[in-house]
Amino acid sequence: MNSLDTRRSIRKYSKRDVSDDMLQRMLASAEHTQTMGNLQLYSVVVTRSEELKRRMAPAHFNQPMVTEAPVVLTFCADFRRTTVWAENRKATPGYDNFLSFINAATDALLFCQTFCNIADEQGLGYCFLGTTIYDPQAIIDILKLPQLVMPVATITLGWPDENPPVSDRLPLKAILHKETFHDYTPEDIDEYYKEKESLPDNRHFVEINNKETLAQVFTDCRYTKHDNEVMSAGMMEALRRQGFLK
Amino acid sequence: MNSLDTRRSIRKYSKRDVSDDMLQRMLASAEHTQTMGNLQLYSVVVTRSEELKRRMAPAHFNQPMVTEAPVVLTFCADFRRTTVWAENRKATPGYDNFLSFINAATDALLFCQTFCNIADEQGLGYCFLGTTIYDPQAIIDILKLPQLVMPVATITLGWPDENPPVSDRLPLKAILHKETFHDYTPEDIDEYYKEKESLPDNRHFVEINNKETLAQVFTDCRYTKHDNEVMSAGMMEALRRQGFLK
Repeated sequence: MNSLDTRRSIRKYSKRDVSDDMLQRMLASAEHTQTMGNLQLYSVVVTRSEELKRRMAPAHFNQPMVTEAPVVLTFCADFRRTTVWAENRKATPGYDNFLSFINAATDALLFCQTFCNIADEQGLGYCFLGTTIYDPQAIIDILKLPQLVMPVATITLGWPDENPPVSDRLPLKAILHKETFHDYTPEDIDEYYKEKESLPDNRHFVEINNKETLAQVFTDCRYTKHDNEVMSAGMMEALRRQGFLK
Repeated sequence: MNSLDTRRSIRKYSKRDVSDDMLQRMLASAEHTQTMGNLQLYSVVVTRSEELKRRMAPAHFNQPMVTEAPVVLTFCADFRRTTVWAENRKATPGYDNFLSFINAATDALLFCQTFCNIADEQGLGYCFLGTTIYDPQAIIDILKLPQLVMPVATITLGWPDENPPVSDRLPLKAILHKETFHDYTPEDIDEYYKEKESLPDNRHFVEINNKETLAQVFTDCRYTKHDNEVMSAGMMEALRRQGFLK
């Protein structure tokens, strides 16, 4: 896919709408993605309402894309449909457990990514919001997600109104392991991160955050141990409430 | 992507090899997939060794693709690289928690799915093995995955030597929710599953399994409550050993 080599997240959208017809064709095409036992353990909530987007924004740390994009798509792990199907067909479902959550989350994320690849090919712009799992209970409440449905990914979607550069990536050798895993030596780390650490934008991040290294920007400012632990507890509590954890 | 509308899992491969060069170009292209904070919280282990594939086969329920495909790719959630980077850069990492696992698993699955979409476009055949998380400890041991690395997806890859039909999918309305989630009524379920339940292959499954409904084939034979609960415990234990759960 040529569209991949110029792919970047788009955070500013034009006023032009994304038609329901186009959106539905893209979602239907993404349905061809492989899925566990062909059960399609996912749902997608398409939100266009200004009010709902405004209410969802805080759960996404008020990133402006949530209210400014014409469409917000929330991809959910969904074992509810399969469970209700079973209950209506004299079958006894057993999907209120952790493995079933991971199975459904996997289905939902694969489906979501095919949708993203289609969006790239269509020239649409999108931003994947990792915030979806930071305060999932807020999203569950606003979108009225029932038991055995859990939000795992959010995409803001629209026609691009910016043209940002393509992000750097680690050299392939950093992510590729031959036959078995080779653990990372300090020399490997130096080699893999050299280019990233030398980029002007990243040196600027280190400076404005008053840090000594780029890694410290991540551990001390962006993704801290404290935040991760608080949000781990919140996510596990949401999984319990949705019926996926005892 | 036109390749999507004819996409299906391929379980039989020709003798023709998939070159390292081609594989590396595809993986490098898939690296453009969005990733949390541009940290690329994933790794891929490329296994071609006959011996290693034979050892991995039981963890994948001895599905023949594992030994017959020229390449097996194991996609891993990997917070190890970022953690070692931090430790070598005077930073204190805090990624030994559940949220960090989900973040890394998300990164790995999105990356994996872009790779699959590229494979389709190249005319390659692949099969996604959901078994990866059924007995993850076996895969961890064979591939020597260290702390904070967890297998989440496996792909067998090769040139197709079969031409199976495209699988049916639920009508789009079954997975699409407008504005907020609408819960499934018995009438919805009848409508969504009518076509699937009437397919000759599925009626045959019901018959050979001596069941009354297709849903019972799933709940009683393929994905049972008992198996799900046993494998949930196994996966959580593996997450504890890999350092993602307390």
